Amino acid sequence: MANACVFCHSVGGELLWQNDLCRIVLVDDPNYVGFCRVILNNHIKEMTDLNPTNRIKVMQITFVVEQVLREILQPTKINLASLGNKTPHIHWHVIPRFEDDMNFPEAIWSAEVRSGNKPKIDGLFNRLQAKLAEALV
Amino acid sequence: MANACVFCHSVGGELLWQNDLCRIVLVDDPNYVGFCRVILNNHIKEMTDLNPTNRIKVMQITFVVEQVLREILQPTKINLASLGNKTPHIHWHVIPRFEDDMNFPEAIWSAEVRSGNKPKIDGLFNRLQAKLAEALV
Repeated sequence: MANACVFCHSVGGELLWQNDLCRIVLVDDPNYVGFCRVILNNHIKEMTDLNPTNRIKVMQITFVVEQVLREILQPTKINLASLGNKTPHIHWHVIPRFEDDMNFPEAIWSAEVRSGNKPKIDGLFNRLQAKLAEALV
Repeated sequence: MANACVFCHSVGGELLWQNDLCRIVLVDDPNYVGFCRVILNNHIKEMTDLNPTNRIKVMQITFVVEQVLREILQPTKINLASLGNKTPHIHWHVIPRFEDDMNFPEAIWSAEVRSGNKPKIDGLFNRLQAKLAEALV
């Protein structure tokens, strides 16, 4: 556990699912509906610092999140990213992107290109949680 | 093959390695030394459009690129990203990041925070090619 690390000291969002290796959270970002993160439980910096088996497990879980978000939201594109420059604790961003979102087709880290549609999806947390529980048995 | 797709019609960088599934290229970006891409050969949009076996193969190759870049360049952090909003043809960015690069600790898609160090590494292409060939037998 690293003293200054936000993912060592907080869940990092609304907890959707967890196992011994990692957790899935829904990020509370009004600009990006359905933005989820897969966060490793342990403080490990790079994917290649994980053993090969756990690397693949993390990716398989990340792809389940992608699949579930596609089923519920039908986004224009899914963006996957593991950056960690500020928080070097493995976490995967899984970001549903839409043609009318704040930055499309640029990355969400680039300058805003429009105010952006901010859709509200009724019961999104519960629907994600149910589908993840079903897929990740 | 998609008519307007740059990765269907060009290699996408300096070719370091390839197999039937994908290729690894060195991106010619003076601001990001060692920036590589793993590009699927077929025009497929999302990782979850690939079958699970090929998904994992693509990731294992991406992690080899990460490992080799870490060995040669000792970056502060590795950034991995599959976005594809403009080019919806699976490609993984593998980006070595340094504290003195143009955007650190922000994402490379964000606004420039400094002019940035632009190191030249002698024989980088050949060193990457040799290490990848050794790791990806």
